[in-house]
Parts: sequence; C-alpha cells; structure tokens
Amino acid sequence: MHNARYKRIHKAGLPPGSLIFTGERKLEHPQLTLTIYNAAQYQPITNATLEQCLVQPTETTTTWIHVSGLHNVDLIARLTQHFNIHPLVTEDILNTHQRPKAEEYDNYLFLSLQALGWDTQTKNFNTEQISIIFGKGFLLSFQEQATPLFAKIQEQLARGQTRLRENNSDYLAYTLIDIIVDQYFLILEDLGGTIEVVEDKIIANIDQNAARDLYRIKQQMYQFRKVIWPLREVVNHLLRSDGKLVTHTTGIYLRDVYDHTIQIMDTIELFHDRLDNMLDVHLSSLTNRMNEIMKVLTIIATLFIPLTFISSIYGMNFHYMPELAWHWGYPAVLLVMLIMAIIMLMYFRRKKWL
Amino acid sequence: MHNARYKRIHKAGLPPGSLIFTGERKLEHPQLTLTIYNAAQYQPITNATLEQCLVQPTETTTTWIHVSGLHNVDLIARLTQHFNIHPLVTEDILNTHQRPKAEEYDNYLFLSLQALGWDTQTKNFNTEQISIIFGKGFLLSFQEQATPLFAKIQEQLARGQTRLRENNSDYLAYTLIDIIVDQYFLILEDLGGTIEVVEDKIIANIDQNAARDLYRIKQQMYQFRKVIWPLREVVNHLLRSDGKLVTHTTGIYLRDVYDHTIQIMDTIELFHDRLDNMLDVHLSSLTNRMNEIMKVLTIIATLFIPLTFISSIYGMNFHYMPELAWHWGYPAVLLVMLIMAIIMLMYFRRKKWL
Amino acid sequence: MHNARYKRIHKAGLPPGSLIFTGERKLEHPQLTLTIYNAAQYQPITNATLEQCLVQPTETTTTWIHVSGLHNVDLIARLTQHFNIHPLVTEDILNTHQRPKAEEYDNYLFLSLQALGWDTQTKNFNTEQISIIFGKGFLLSFQEQATPLFAKIQEQLARGQTRLRENNSDYLAYTLIDIIVDQYFLILEDLGGTIEVVEDKIIANIDQNAARDLYRIKQQMYQFRKVIWPLREVVNHLLRSDGKLVTHTTGIYLRDVYDHTIQIMDTIELFHDRLDNMLDVHLSSLTNRMNEIMKVLTIIATLFIPLTFISSIYGMNFHYMPELAWHWGYPAVLLVMLIMAIIMLMYFRRKKWL
Amino acid sequence: MHNARYKRIHKAGLPPGSLIFTGERKLEHPQLTLTIYNAAQYQPITNATLEQCLVQPTETTTTWIHVSGLHNVDLIARLTQHFNIHPLVTEDILNTHQRPKAEEYDNYLFLSLQALGWDTQTKNFNTEQISIIFGKGFLLSFQEQATPLFAKIQEQLARGQTRLRENNSDYLAYTLIDIIVDQYFLILEDLGGTIEVVEDKIIANIDQNAARDLYRIKQQMYQFRKVIWPLREVVNHLLRSDGKLVTHTTGIYLRDVYDHTIQIMDTIELFHDRLDNMLDVHLSSLTNRMNEIMKVLTIIATLFIPLTFISSIYGMNFHYMPELAWHWGYPAVLLVMLIMAIIMLMYFRRKKWL
Amino acid sequence: MHNARYKRIHKAGLPPGSLIFTGERKLEHPQLTLTIYNAAQYQPITNATLEQCLVQPTETTTTWIHVSGLHNVDLIARLTQHFNIHPLVTEDILNTHQRPKAEEYDNYLFLSLQALGWDTQTKNFNTEQISIIFGKGFLLSFQEQATPLFAKIQEQLARGQTRLRENNSDYLAYTLIDIIVDQYFLILEDLGGTIEVVEDKIIANIDQNAARDLYRIKQQMYQFRKVIWPLREVVNHLLRSDGKLVTHTTGIYLRDVYDHTIQIMDTIELFHDRLDNMLDVHLSSLTNRMNEIMKVLTIIATLFIPLTFISSIYGMNFHYMPELAWHWGYPAVLLVMLIMAIIMLMYFRRKKWL
Repeated sequence: MHNARYKRIHKAGLPPGSLIFTGERKLEHPQLTLTIYNAAQYQPITNATLEQCLVQPTETTTTWIHVSGLHNVDLIARLTQHFNIHPLVTEDILNTHQRPKAEEYDNYLFLSLQALGWDTQTKNFNTEQISIIFGKGFLLSFQEQATPLFAKIQEQLARGQTRLRENNSDYLAYTLIDIIVDQYFLILEDLGGTIEVVEDKIIANIDQNAARDLYRIKQQMYQFRKVIWPLREVVNHLLRSDGKLVTHTTGIYLRDVYDHTIQIMDTIELFHDRLDNMLDVHLSSLTNRMNEIMKVLTIIATLFIPLTFISSIYGMNFHYMPELAWHWGYPAVLLVMLIMAIIMLMYFRRKKWL
Repeated sequence: MHNARYKRIHKAGLPPGSLIFTGERKLEHPQLTLTIYNAAQYQPITNATLEQCLVQPTETTTTWIHVSGLHNVDLIARLTQHFNIHPLVTEDILNTHQRPKAEEYDNYLFLSLQALGWDTQTKNFNTEQISIIFGKGFLLSFQEQATPLFAKIQEQLARGQTRLRENNSDYLAYTLIDIIVDQYFLILEDLGGTIEVVEDKIIANIDQNAARDLYRIKQQMYQFRKVIWPLREVVNHLLRSDGKLVTHTTGIYLRDVYDHTIQIMDTIELFHDRLDNMLDVHLSSLTNRMNEIMKVLTIIATLFIPLTFISSIYGMNFHYMPELAWHWGYPAVLLVMLIMAIIMLMYFRRKKWL
Repeated sequence: MHNARYKRIHKAGLPPGSLIFTGERKLEHPQLTLTIYNAAQYQPITNATLEQCLVQPTETTTTWIHVSGLHNVDLIARLTQHFNIHPLVTEDILNTHQRPKAEEYDNYLFLSLQALGWDTQTKNFNTEQISIIFGKGFLLSFQEQATPLFAKIQEQLARGQTRLRENNSDYLAYTLIDIIVDQYFLILEDLGGTIEVVEDKIIANIDQNAARDLYRIKQQMYQFRKVIWPLREVVNHLLRSDGKLVTHTTGIYLRDVYDHTIQIMDTIELFHDRLDNMLDVHLSSLTNRMNEIMKVLTIIATLFIPLTFISSIYGMNFHYMPELAWHWGYPAVLLVMLIMAIIMLMYFRRKKWL
Repeated sequence: MHNARYKRIHKAGLPPGSLIFTGERKLEHPQLTLTIYNAAQYQPITNATLEQCLVQPTETTTTWIHVSGLHNVDLIARLTQHFNIHPLVTEDILNTHQRPKAEEYDNYLFLSLQALGWDTQTKNFNTEQISIIFGKGFLLSFQEQATPLFAKIQEQLARGQTRLRENNSDYLAYTLIDIIVDQYFLILEDLGGTIEVVEDKIIANIDQNAARDLYRIKQQMYQFRKVIWPLREVVNHLLRSDGKLVTHTTGIYLRDVYDHTIQIMDTIELFHDRLDNMLDVHLSSLTNRMNEIMKVLTIIATLFIPLTFISSIYGMNFHYMPELAWHWGYPAVLLVMLIMAIIMLMYFRRKKWL
Repeated sequence: MHNARYKRIHKAGLPPGSLIFTGERKLEHPQLTLTIYNAAQYQPITNATLEQCLVQPTETTTTWIHVSGLHNVDLIARLTQHFNIHPLVTEDILNTHQRPKAEEYDNYLFLSLQALGWDTQTKNFNTEQISIIFGKGFLLSFQEQATPLFAKIQEQLARGQTRLRENNSDYLAYTLIDIIVDQYFLILEDLGGTIEVVEDKIIANIDQNAARDLYRIKQQMYQFRKVIWPLREVVNHLLRSDGKLVTHTTGIYLRDVYDHTIQIMDTIELFHDRLDNMLDVHLSSLTNRMNEIMKVLTIIATLFIPLTFISSIYGMNFHYMPELAWHWGYPAVLLVMLIMAIIMLMYFRRKKWL
C-alpha cells in the first residue's frame, strides 16, 4: 500500500498527457454501463459496447456512462475524446494514485476520489480511485474494480420518481460522492473499535507491544487522512462553483456532504490525539513496571546481603575468634540478624515500598 | 459515548433525506409545548397535541413550539413540513450525533447544538442534541429528553414584561443558547476541580497511575472541545447574519455569548497545557523514584559485597593460611572491613547519595 | 486563583444583564474620584459623592470618574445609567473575571483589562480587573481595590501643561493602558529572574524537583499569557477604530503600547520554549544520573561476585580437595583473584566506565 | 552539503549586483546550446559560441539558449545583458545556493529551481541549481553541470509536431519544471524504500542504532522539504501570472505540476510523521528490553540470595549450633530451601514475570 | 544578555516620550559623521559638530548623518527635533532594547534594527541597535558603538559613480540593511559549525552533557530568531510602501534582502528541528548505554550467584552431609557448576546478550 503513493515515477520522463495505466489490472475485461434517464424514462444497458456509449447527451435526459476496469487505455481514450475531455484528465483517470481533487474545465467538472475499503487479509485499507466527469446532461464515472459501490444508485434509479431521477447530472455526482463518504463512516467505526481494543489492553497494562500496535493504527489513520483532507477541498470547490454546473438544490445536499467530511476529519483528529495520549499511558506504565521490578530486587538484596555478610564473618576460620566459643553466640547472632531485618522492613514500609 | 461520533453509518446506503432516528429512545412519549407570546400576552400549552401546534405564526406574536423526545419520526416530519423546513434539516434533527452547526435557509435559520450534562454513573459527559429552527415570528426547538433545561425560560416568560417578552424569536434563540453555554461553565468548574485533585496527588507524588487519570481527563476535554469549537462558529455565523433574522439588539447579546465561548475555549486550552505539563512532572518523578530505589540498592551492594568477599577469603579451608593463626588476625580483618566501609560511605557522601 | 476563570457560573440561569458582583469585597466603601480638566483647568474631587459625579460632560473639558471598589452594585448601576451605558457593559464591570476585551458602542468604547500584581504570599499573580469606558469628553474607570495604580496620573494632571492635559479622554485611556502594561514589564523581570535561578540549579544538576519548579513557573506564564494575548487584540481594536473616538495623535502612542504587548508576548514565548528545553536538560540529567549509579553498582558487583564465588569454592568442606593441602594453594588463589580483578578493571576502562 | 545553505557569506560586504560564482567548478568549459524552433522548423546548435547566441528573438519562433557550467562569469554577464536581464538576476544565477523562487520583471519571468539527484557516495542529496528566464519568444536556462536532464527535451523537439513545438517559451518552461519534478518522485521512492528497511528493523527490534538512522533520514527529508516547499510557491506564482507571459493552455499543464508538488509535500509530511512514530516504537522497545533484562536479574537474585544466606548461616563456625549435629539437619535445610524457591517462583508467576 | 529584553521597566511610570538612554555607555563621546553626496559630489565630514549637522536637506543631494554613541541624550534630541522627528521615535532610538520594527510617519520612515556580532568572551551574541530614519533627501542613522559596520558604505561612496551615489536616501537605507543582513550569514555559519561539532559528538556517543550543549545552542538560536523574524516584517513593510519614499528601483533590491531574511529563517528552522532530533538521538543512546550496563551486571550476577549458592551449600558444617565424604564429590560439584554456567551462557546467547 505504502509505495502506491509515489508510483507516478514509472512514467517519469514521458511527455505530459502520455496515457499509461499505472495501477494493477484487477478485472479481466472493462465493463461499460450506459444509463440514460430522466423523471419519465430509465434505460440501463449493462455490458454496453463502446460504440453504444458514444452517444450525444441531450437536454432533457441525463446520460451516465460507468466504466469498471481501467487497463484498456485505448477504450478510455476514445470515450473521453468523444466527450472532448482534456488529455491531462484522461491521464489522471488512468493514473490511479491521484490525490483527491476537483478541476474545473469549460464545459465539465473533473473529480478524482478515493473509495476506501478494508482489506481483511493485509489488515489495511484498500483504496480504489473513482473518477467522475460531469457536464450538462452527462456524467462519466470510472473505477478500477467492479465493486458493487454504485449498484445502489441503479436501484434508486430503477425504483422510479425519486429526487435522483428528477435532477440532473450534478445531483448524480453528489449521490456518488455521498455513497463514497458513507463508506468512510464504516471504516471509521472499524478504526474506533480497533482503538478501543488496544486502549483496554493498555489501561489493563497487558500489552507489551502497545507501541507497535499504536504505530500500526496511526499509519492507517494517516492514509485515511490523506484521502479525507483533500476531499473536503473537493466538496468545497463544488460548493463554490455554485450556479453553473452545480444547481442551488444540489448545493444544499453538497453542504451536507461537506459537514460529513468535517465530522470525519474531527473524529480522525480526535483518534489521533487519543492514540498519542495512549502512548503516554503506555510509556508511563513501562516505567512503572520497571520501578516495580527494581523495588523487588532492591528489597531482597538490601535485606539479605548484609545478613549474609554477618554470617560469612562467623564462617571465617581464624583460630582466635572468641565469639565462636560463647555458648549464646549463635542465638545472639540470629537475634541481631532478625533485628536488622526488622529495621530494614520498617525502612521499606516508611518509603512506601511495601 | 465514544462511538456516538460515528453512528451515522446505520443509515449508510439510504438516499439522503431519509428520516431515521439514530439516538436512543429516552422518553416514552414525545411532549409538545406550544407557547404564543408577545409583550402583552403569554399562552403556554403544555402537552399540546400535534394539531394544536400546526398554527400559522403571526406578525405580532412569537410562536414557540418545543418538542421533547425525538423517536416519533412521523410527528416531527409533519411538524417541520408544516413550517416548510428542508428535509435535510429534519434529518439532522433526528440524527442526534451532529456536530454543532448553523445553516441559513431562505426563511429560517437552523441551529444544531449539544447540551452537556455530567453523568455521575459513567463518570463522563452526557450530551443531548438541541435543535433550534427560527424565523420571523416562530421558533421550533427539539431535544431528546425532557430535561428541565428550558423550564427557566417559561418562568421568565411567565414573569411578565422582561426583555424576552418584548423581543422576537431571535432573542428567544439567544436565550436558549445562553442557557446551554451557562451549563458549560458548570461542567468546566467540575473539570477544573478534578484536575486539581489529580494535580495535588502528582505534586505529592502519591499517584502511581497518574498517567491513566490524566488520560481519562484529557479524553473528556476532547469531547468538550468537540462541542465548543463548532459552537463558536455557530454563534459567529449568527453574528454575521446580522440584520435579516437577527436584530441589532440581539446581536449585542450574542456578542456576549461569543465572548463566553471564547473564554471556555481559552480555559480548555489552558487545562490541556496544564495536563500535558502535569504528565511531565509525573514522568520525571517516576524516574526520580527509580533513581532513589537504585541508589539504595547500589549503596547496600557496594558496601557489603566487598566485605563479604573478604570474609569469604578467610572462610577458605586451605591448610596453610598463616593469617588464620595470627592472634590479632580476626580483629585486624574486622578493622580493615570497618575502614573500607567508612571509605565507601565517604565516597557516597561526596556523590551526594547520602 | 485558578478557579477565578470559571466563576461566572454563580449566576448561571439568571437572565442576561443581571447585575451581580462576582469578585471578593476588597474595600469597605467604594471610593469615587471626580476629575474635570482641560489644558487650563484641573479640579480633582477625591471621595466624591455619587450625586457630584452625575455631571454632564462638556465639549471643552474631560470628565474623569474613577471608582475603587465594586461591591456597591446599586451605585455603579446608577452611574452607568447616567452615562447611557448598555446593561451588558455594567454586568461585565461587576463580573471581575473577564477576558480582556474592547467593545465598541455608538457613543463610547468599553475596555476590560486585567492589571497584574505579584502576591508575595501566595507566590502567584494577583489580577485586578480594570474597566474603562470612554466617549467624547468623559472617561469612567473602575477597579476592585484602591491600589495606587492611577495616582501617578493624578500627579501628571496636577503638574500642569503636559500632553495629558492638552488631549482628550482617548489620551487619558491610553495613559491608563500604558501604566498597566508598564506594570507587566516588572512582572516579566521577576519571572525572568525566577527562571534563571531554576536554570542555574538545573545546569548544576542539584535540583531534584526541577520538573515541579518548571511546572509552577509555566502555570504562572499561562496566566500571564491569558491576560496579554487578548490585550493585544484590545489595543489593535483601538488602533483600527482610528478617527472617531481615538484621534490620530493618540493612535501613534497606542502603536507604541501595541509594540510593547508584542514585545511581552515574544518574551513569554521565549520563556516558554526555554522552560521546555530546560525540562529536556533535566530529564536527560536524571537518566545520566541513573547511568552513573548503575555503573557503580555494576563495577562493584562484576568485580566481587566472581571473586567471592572462587573463595566460596575453597570454603567447601569436601574431604578430598587436593588443592587445600597444597602449600602454595592459598597464595595461588589470591593471585588468580588479583589477575581476574585486573582483567575486569581493564575491561571497564575500555568501556569508558572508569 | 549542509553548509551549502549559508555560503552567501563569501561575498558579504560587496555591493549588491556583484557577479561572483559561489559554487564549485564542475565543468571544464561552459557549454552553450542554441535551439531555435517553431511548429515548422527546429535548428539545434550544440556547442554554440557566445556570438551565435546573441540573436534577437523573433515573433514566430522560440529561441532557447541553454548554458551548462557557470564559472565563466563574463560569458553569462554578456549573455544576460544582451537580453536586458536585471543584474540581481544574473547574480542569483551565479549564486548557486538560492532558495527556489519566481520573480516577475517587466518583460520576463525568472525562475530559480533546484534539481535533486542522489549521490551514492555521500549517501546524500545532490542539488543542482537550474535557472530559467523566459519571455516572449525566448528562454534562457542555466545549470552547473552537463547532466542529461534536458536532453529529453531536445529529443521531444527533434521528434516533430508535438505540443512542445506548437507552443511558446512558457510551455518550454513548463516542460523543464515538469522534468525536474518528475526527478523528485524517483528520490521520493528511494527515501520510501530506505524508511521501510529501517521500519522493518525497528519492528523486529534488531536495530540498536535506530535513533541514529532515523535522524539521518530526517535530515535528508528536511533538505528535500527545503526544495519542495518554495517550489510550490514558484508554480503557484506562475499560475497566478496567467495571461501575460503564461498562456491559458500552459496554465492547465502547470496546474498538473502544482498537484504533483502538493502530492510530494503530502508524502514528505507523511514520511515525517511516520519517522516520528517509529522513534516512539524504538524508544518503547528500548525500555521494554531493559524491563526484560531487569526481570532476569531480579528473578535470579531474588531466588538465590536468600538461599545463599541460609546456607551461609550453617557455614558459621560457632561451637554450639545444635542443628549441625542433628541427623536430618542437612536434608531439612535443603527442603526448606526448595520450598522457599517454589514460593518465589509462584510469586513471579503471579506477577507474570515468568 | 537575557535580561536586556525586559529592561524597559527602568522607566516604568514616566510619561511616554521621556528621553532616557537605557543601554550601557559604550563610547566616551558620541561621534557625528555628516556626508552630503549625489552622483557628482561627495563631502564627508567625520567628527562633525552638532551645528554642522543641523543642515537643511536639498532636493538634489542626499544628506546622511551618522551618530555613533547614544548616551548624549540632549544631542540626539536636538538633532531629531531639527528634522521634525516624533518624540516617540527619539525615545525608541535611545531605548536600545527594541524589537526590530518599521514605522511610517508623514515625511519619513523609521527603522529600528539589531546588528548581531559574536562575543567571543561571553560565547554569545552581541546585539547592537541600529536606528535609521530616512525621508526625501536625508537619512539619519544611530548606533551604540563605533563599530566599522558602515565604513564600507563610505568607501563605496568615495569610490565614485556607483549605484549608491546615483540613487537617493532609500537606496542608502537598503544598503545599510543589506550590510546588517550580510552579517547574519556569518553568524549563521558559526552556528552551523557549532552544531556540527555537537552532532559529531552525539553520533559518536561521547558527549555526556549533550543535552546541556543543545540547550545552550537553542537559546542562542532563539535570540537570533527574535531578531530575524521581525526584520522580515520590516523589509516587507518597506516593500509595501513602494512608491512614496521607496522607489521601484530600490524595491527590487529590497526584494533581494527579503529573500535573504527568508533564507536565514529557513536555515534557523532547519537548525532548530535538527537540534530537536539530535536530542532524541542523545536520549536514545543514554537508554542504550544503560541497557548495555544492565546487561553486563545481569550476565555476571546470573552466572555467579547460583554457583556461589551451590558452593555455599557444601560450605555448611552439618555433621551428616554424605556428599562431603564422597571421593568424587568435589569434582562432581565442579562439573555441575560448569554445566550450569554453559547453560546460562547459551541462554544469554539466544537472547542476543552476548
């Protein structure tokens, strides 16, 4: 995952606008879905051919062409040329490691987004680039895999007289963004759950490798942040371009998405601070633990080393050691040792070590 | 509490504007209170029916409808439709995990606030979402529980010719916000008290788990901050929309609330820095404590280990050890040991360990 | 001191504009001083009655009413009503835990400031709220105690044709602010001195509780900062309201005060970073100290434990231990021990432990 | 490398505009390459003489003069004078330790950039200053060495009807910048690889000097950041100067470069946070390791020191020690010791030390 | 040095505009240098009298009066009065602990700068306040000592038709600033050198007091920063006041100085981060060192304490210890000890402690 960020290098040196697909081929064949709809009609063609898709958008309907699978560079180039899309945009669609962004062109808006999924195998995020181009009467969307992310929209369209059918391509674009952002909340909940598990372990002081766990979670949060921060700018860009391509009605809904991105960012920042503070708790309990260990050692050593010294004195073999011959010498020494031990224990108790 | 933040997910996938109540049902039946007042008249109807509330606001009076309990989605939908409120606003009222925000619509302003209480059982904050919609001559307010937060306003209204009765719905909105913010000061005092207790323990160095306590308080402060930061923007938004829905007179009072939010934020930041610094004190005393423990161990070991070695030498059983037969051998060895001990002690004293 | 910040709560629930004095009663009776002056005349009346003070300001003179002691709420209410001051301003004068602020009203400017003193008993700051209201031809000032802070101004006025006499109430306001800010420099010098004492102790490594000392100083600095940061905004506010109530001449002098607040803030930030860095030095010397202690223990233990083991071998009572009967056995063992000790010492020297 | 940053001092004291080359002479002779091209024609003259280069730019062609090697101050001075370049610009070209910057003059734009390479010997970056001056119909570029950085452009030009040939000098400038930025991605990948190697070692806890490695990488990242941050401003400057020297067409491409610099900055920030977090993991495992070591010591010492004390008691030589004569004394003592050891081990197990 | 920052207090309580010199008297007599020049003429009068200096600036020449030594308050007051300088400016010239600043007055600009030198005795910076006042046709400059900082300008003037002679007082002001900033680069190089020395010691792990050294350098950098940050604003202020007192020509040169201050600030920030990271390396090697020490202690103790216990068993004097009478008892015990030691060593090796 981590080296996905700086993959652009494979085309370093080529002139700008060179069309090269930089992701992994995740689908055998690209799938095109052509949907032409308005409040009255709805004609979805799944597995459409390229030729079917090269339609002219009309004033009264919305033409939505969705492409799953990006490795057929030629197909995508012909499709975008048909809609007069700038070569740099086509390049950005194919280069799947984009930072989320919105770019305004004369007749259309280009959005590059990152959908997030959770890969249960690598225990990490799974990003998929979603590119959206929309203008008056048409919307092109591109994704790497055939994930069922957008199937819900087809359902909504099919169901009939919803707000979606009545509005234009800008509302469709909003709906796509809304679905992607909704997905983020699910990831956020997962992350929150993971954090609580680690938190419980740290509070109970049973996780020796807490620092490593916290590190892993933080790295995931950085990846999340990398996606969500620019997204806010994207939505803000759309909000500000109010009037031309984005209608006032859609603008109100976009404001809602904007609030959601802010809410996600707030939560991520909160998680981040929380992880930092958890690390402090962990480090402090490591030191506490060492204090505990050292205290045991010190008590034992301080108690027995002087006593052993005394008994070693009377273990010496000097010929003239008068105490050795005393009748009460042995019990006297034992008594002395006992008194010393008691004094030591009282000292420890006063120091609050016992 | 903590997963309240990312609860929106339960409706992920539904079309926007779908009305679903995402909180817990905290009241058996929703209670409606209809109050129509101006400087001259005041007619409160507690436990009003929905039909009673579907009145048309007049120019000369202020109509205040207060709803406690949000789980009757249908009731709230009908009420808001009557006042021509946008579906997204109704959705936000029902979704009780909103970030505080202010949204301007053509004929009304929508405020989403979070009232804070202290839950003595979970030892944590207790947030309750308060939604306020106000326009010319009317104000709708919604809260989850039937807490007596707004009973004070009824009292003020009942008491007669106060500023509240003479002004319009914008002043009523201000009064509601002011009551919520006043509540924050109480929480702040509680937090301040808790911090001082922990501080005293840390300064006296008797709290082994100080890091954990500090962590807990910090988490609470983050929750507080999450509520207060956006509130500042909300009040600022109201201040800037001066003239249309908010009169100049009310604006001066709102400036006062704004100052209070700044003051709360300042205090929270101060608390935050203070907790960070307290952690430093705690960590430093942990290390100090270990130094103390190690010093005791080192003194004892350094004093007795060499002495024990000497006595162990004269405990050896070699046949030819001339010293053993000396008459003064035993006292001489004792003297040597004494001198060694004294030298050691002087060394420790010079090192400032004693 | 610390809970002074969130004292507003005692009036939580009361309607805004309720006049309640939230400070401590520091004076038996409030003292009013009425001074009417211009370049030609100067009439100070100390211990004026309220009735004397209810004068009408004239175009050609400056009327300065100074009130020491705020607990007579009624007196202050009548005075401010006479000058048509907004009830919220009167509330702010009485509530002595304000954040420094400037508020512009139609005919006057309201400034709330905090004078700092050093309380030698509590070893902490001593804040006193100074409220200033000034308009064309008049200035009202309020302070909690009868500290001689403003006696200097009376002296300057008495002395005759100074700039103070020639200018209007805005210049008088500037002079009051200037005196308060000058006081801050004295506190800053005290703080600087305290920091240097702690610094010397930390550098000399003789302060075991340095972390606690640094904590205490930092807390004081936070209090200072809480006063000085908003003050900068206050002065900036005055500078920007150039023209109407503040003349260009006074503006140039205010710019000077502004520079001083910046200078104080810079110094506080510098102190802050310095304290942080001093903590690092302290923590590092704690660890150094422990290394030192551990080194002594390790050297002694590593030197004598093996030697003691050897002598304990020859202290065993086996009947058949041929070495015991050797004539040179004893000196040979002593020699072996000596060689072992020398090797150990060489090892320590190579490790730079000796 | 590090003192390259503050080398300007060698000319401290000279009047501004004094032309002194402050870098190292990296080439024997400066090489001039003159290229005059438009969509139809392309005339490259490698190893051109200065006289050949002193041409007058025409309206219909783009004149590109590229200089490799900067130590011939006179040559560069004459060249820039011919194109009416301000003396300060010429000074900046020769002073090879500039911060990347863009400066607008009446008829031309001056860009100072830093190309990065990786020096495999010093294990550090290798910066080379690239200066670009472009105006209507001409572009001058200067670099210290004859690195093949710009050879690719010659190839593109030679290849014929590319976008490069059809556009003017602003597009050529863009292409130069794009090549430099592409180079950064390669460095970024190298850095990312190095970080992962250190990360793996830290996670596996086998790198004792991880702190030092992290320090080294961080230093390199600071150098990178020093180049990339001002670059963003440079590109932004170009974008904003849209219309005059930079055409709208080129602006779209520059926006692409701008996105790349943002992406690089994001990645660097991410790396930075990651390194900080890795340090935390490292420090925590150092403490963990010490806990481990101390635990072993404590277990052994706590187990055997008391036992040794008991046996030393019965090693004393008192004449009257009744236990010594008991027949079962020896096995009884061994049994006592065994019981003590078992109790100790159970204690350790309960403490989770075993 | 450190208390220089808050010295203003000595005049606390005096009315603003009171002229008191707050620095140390560093020169016996103030020296005045009067220079009147334009492109054609150049008349320097060193050791001019005050009367000679009270000239009227003309349209065609630039009059430069330079004052070394500030303790003659009266002389400076008369000089500034002659040029109609505001009393606050004169106060700022005499108060030698100003923060660098630029202030615009009707007919002149006032700049207060801090020249830095390195005091080899106190091992610290040596600041000297330089005040510059310039208007149409005249420039007054003031410095505390007679350092040869500005002698270079006299040389440049004497040399004839330079840019300096052809331009007006604003260019002279630029030249003065440029010389001061050039000086900073020298200091920066010194600082850089010091940092590298400490860095090498820390990397080689031979500096026990690295934390203290880093602290000292950081303090110096704070002082540097305190001078350079406001300087940037000063230069920026001059740049923005383009047109009136500062000509466009000089503006281009000032932009160059502005770039230099940015470059210095960048380097300081870089140094700062580097020192922080060096501290991390140092703290981590302290802990590493302790691990090393503890490991030696643990190995020795763990190896010999059990062995000593065994031999102490056979040192007991019980009458019935059958092993003692065995013929192979002694070698058997030695063998057991050897096996135990080997097992221990293998354990340590597996733990990577050896």
